[in-house]
Amino acid sequence: MNIQTSLDIAAGALQLPQPYLLFLGDATESGFAKTAYGLRDWAPEKCVGEYALPAATVSTGLPALTPAEAVAKGARSILIGIANRGGVIAPDWIPALVEALEAGLDIVSGMHARLSEIPELAEPAARLGRQLIDVRHAPQGLPVGTGRKRSGKRLLTVGTDCALGKKYTALALARAFADRRVDVDFRASGQTGIMIAGGGIPMDAVVSDFEAGAAETLSPDAAPGHWDVIEGQGSLMHPAYAAVSLGLLHGSQPDIIVVCHQPGRQEMLGTAGYSVPGVEETIGLNLRLGARTNPAIRCAGLSYNTSHLSEDEAFALMAEESRRLGLPVADPIRGGDAFARLVDSCLA
Amino acid sequence: MNIQTSLDIAAGALQLPQPYLLFLGDATESGFAKTAYGLRDWAPEKCVGEYALPAATVSTGLPALTPAEAVAKGARSILIGIANRGGVIAPDWIPALVEALEAGLDIVSGMHARLSEIPELAEPAARLGRQLIDVRHAPQGLPVGTGRKRSGKRLLTVGTDCALGKKYTALALARAFADRRVDVDFRASGQTGIMIAGGGIPMDAVVSDFEAGAAETLSPDAAPGHWDVIEGQGSLMHPAYAAVSLGLLHGSQPDIIVVCHQPGRQEMLGTAGYSVPGVEETIGLNLRLGARTNPAIRCAGLSYNTSHLSEDEAFALMAEESRRLGLPVADPIRGGDAFARLVDSCLA
Repeated sequence: MNIQTSLDIAAGALQLPQPYLLFLGDATESGFAKTAYGLRDWAPEKCVGEYALPAATVSTGLPALTPAEAVAKGARSILIGIANRGGVIAPDWIPALVEALEAGLDIVSGMHARLSEIPELAEPAARLGRQLIDVRHAPQGLPVGTGRKRSGKRLLTVGTDCALGKKYTALALARAFADRRVDVDFRASGQTGIMIAGGGIPMDAVVSDFEAGAAETLSPDAAPGHWDVIEGQGSLMHPAYAAVSLGLLHGSQPDIIVVCHQPGRQEMLGTAGYSVPGVEETIGLNLRLGARTNPAIRCAGLSYNTSHLSEDEAFALMAEESRRLGLPVADPIRGGDAFARLVDSCLA
Repeated sequence: MNIQTSLDIAAGALQLPQPYLLFLGDATESGFAKTAYGLRDWAPEKCVGEYALPAATVSTGLPALTPAEAVAKGARSILIGIANRGGVIAPDWIPALVEALEAGLDIVSGMHARLSEIPELAEPAARLGRQLIDVRHAPQGLPVGTGRKRSGKRLLTVGTDCALGKKYTALALARAFADRRVDVDFRASGQTGIMIAGGGIPMDAVVSDFEAGAAETLSPDAAPGHWDVIEGQGSLMHPAYAAVSLGLLHGSQPDIIVVCHQPGRQEMLGTAGYSVPGVEETIGLNLRLGARTNPAIRCAGLSYNTSHLSEDEAFALMAEESRRLGLPVADPIRGGDAFARLVDSCLA
């Protein structure tokens, strides 16, 4: 899968040097290489190959290249495509990362630890004039929101909860728009999405006063027929993260929302005693609050994460929900007619 | 006026060394000394005196003291009680501030510029072991919200817009609660409030992911009969600042909201084309969203900023609004029976 968008990075957002060499460290469990797999699946044209330590047993299937070989193929950065417990840069990785700096690559990381706070990397990077880019950290100089109406069209994925498919849905919709020859950009608001898009703003890392302004920066003025498909974050009903969701909603000024949901999930992620809100309530609340900056906002349909159901169960449930709600309901991973109807509804 | 509360600063919040020596710099216009006047009015017992440069013509009426004299009277910090165009520490102020450091005082500032980034202050502060405290900057290590129900009672002031009396209303209500022998703390969420309270969290400076968690930190578990009166920020309907307001609402878990409004204000502060929402809409939206973390939330009444009206006009308008809404409506600056009814309603 390839996200065929123009991938124009908004001024003021993070911008990552591409293409990447994917670094796999010494990973022996595929679960820890999720970021690398996501890049291979969604941005293969931006990945010249992979680089792993001898102890590693996982692979993305991309060509194995040394940093020098990757530079010869056009790579501009080495991207840390793995995580470990703790989200730290392991000492064993340092020589390989320094080798990458010396070969001419910048380093891109989504780990918790800041690259620039690791002297073994900061010193050679400074000496060689290379960038150390932490995609968990927001860019400097974000403005306060103005609420000014921007040109172009916008779609925002919103959710009943966290971690149920808002990024995947936005990527799949952006790809489907592009397949229909619609001029579209995927706008990334979280670290994995930013790596895929090559830029964006980690909205949860922005100081609250600038949250709506950051969202305004993320999807700037565009041509009248152009679509920004914006990756949502959190949920307006999440007791910890609703501030992120509301700032993103206000600043995005979406013409359309697509509500993401996982049928059967009972409790909000990371909280005790908070039930997941219903989809009707989620639609209503997002439309009410979103109307503040775009009175024409509408819900184009729903994206259900049905990975825990059989195919028959999933399609039966989605058909029933679609009748009940009067809106298209689709699982972008399963695709099919249901997903085509969701795309139709977005572009109607 | 004196905010007679227990002023117990929540663990994890900013804590300011008190009492203060108020620094007036070279101010010649009283408008620039607003912070100093606010401290004199709301926290006189925490201000041992004032210190001004020879060029200054403004005064709070507090005793004029040198830093050494202030230390002898128990002062622990010098507080920059003035602003200027640009929010910078003027070079002319530096010798006086260094004198304060040498006399044994920490420095507390609400200016945009960080004290620690001014070498002429950072060097002597480091050498003498003094603190440089910027109240615009959030404390480190704030947690993600949990939504866990906390003990004790909470009141949050909310608004139809920014800058119309949420801090003043919270201070006046906390004082009125204390006058009735209610165990109460004023919880400050903005820089001037933090200076008055001696601590708090500048909610607009908190990273969005931690906004609700910061609000949970600001008003911790308390005795069953204890009230936290929490200073609100922004407005849920403000296109730039709603993220701050929603995180503060969710994390505060208020039992009661008091809605602050300025009758006659047409346009939201700092935006073009956004009208101020009505008070009914503001009550409804705050109750709906606040119910997520406290299903028992209710609106106890309204606080109107009527400074632009005559006394007769103000009381007539508030009486009419109170009948229309079925809730007490008062201007805490004007006080009177209307304000007593608002306090009754809060404590009912």
